[in-house]
Amino acid sequence: MQLSRFTDYTLRVLFYVAINDDRLSTLNEIAEFYGISVEHLRKVVHALSKSGHLKTFRGKHGGIRLNRAPADINIGAVVLQAEGNEPLINCASLDCTLTGACNLQRTLADAQRAFMDVLSRHSLADMLANPDMKQRLISKTG
Amino acid sequence: MQLSRFTDYTLRVLFYVAINDDRLSTLNEIAEFYGISVEHLRKVVHALSKSGHLKTFRGKHGGIRLNRAPADINIGAVVLQAEGNEPLINCASLDCTLTGACNLQRTLADAQRAFMDVLSRHSLADMLANPDMKQRLISKTG
Repeated sequence: MQLSRFTDYTLRVLFYVAINDDRLSTLNEIAEFYGISVEHLRKVVHALSKSGHLKTFRGKHGGIRLNRAPADINIGAVVLQAEGNEPLINCASLDCTLTGACNLQRTLADAQRAFMDVLSRHSLADMLANPDMKQRLISKTG
Repeated sequence: MQLSRFTDYTLRVLFYVAINDDRLSTLNEIAEFYGISVEHLRKVVHALSKSGHLKTFRGKHGGIRLNRAPADINIGAVVLQAEGNEPLINCASLDCTLTGACNLQRTLADAQRAFMDVLSRHSLADMLANPDMKQRLISKTG
């Protein structure tokens, strides 16, 4: 069981812009900070802007910043949006002989809800409540 | 978030042999029943034998059967074994700048535990407690 790279990058972008909140952050500096591709980040930032978590500013001195306070950004909602709400085993796509008669799907759905419930008890602010984390995230270019 | 094909096949093998419990099942018939590859099933059956969930019999009239009663096979334990206990985001392999300072891992580990806790409340017998399921799983070759 793994979360996608998309979810991983989504969370890392939020961490970065939340800590560097006294200015706009750029895709290039975030990509460089984490050593990840700008192209992947672009999709992540697009999705986060669309969902209202980020605000983007165009132009030479453009960049991104959070559109809400970190305490108002729910980690469960962010992960759910990044992962999508696909079932853990997608019976329909598997063309399984048991589809529709099997109790497994309901049990897996219950387990997935329990997973999301735990994440939903945490905000972005909780994720940042570690002095080491803040220290590392304050960009040297900022 | 998805469970692996390996986990999917693991569960399906257990369902099949549990219902056809009056005889030995063969890899070939299970592969045919589900329309999946014998080669993939071989690995799954090997792992289930190693963990003591299946008993295998060699030879012309050989095959597999459950080694424990369905009520004694815990779905959480089966899924955990099939999936492995990898973290949901493997920070070490990602070489993330925040590794060691980040609160996310603990939160994800809590959520993963909540997920497994739900599965651990169910046995293989619970998964089969559906008359339609039994009906479909009784092999026509049996």
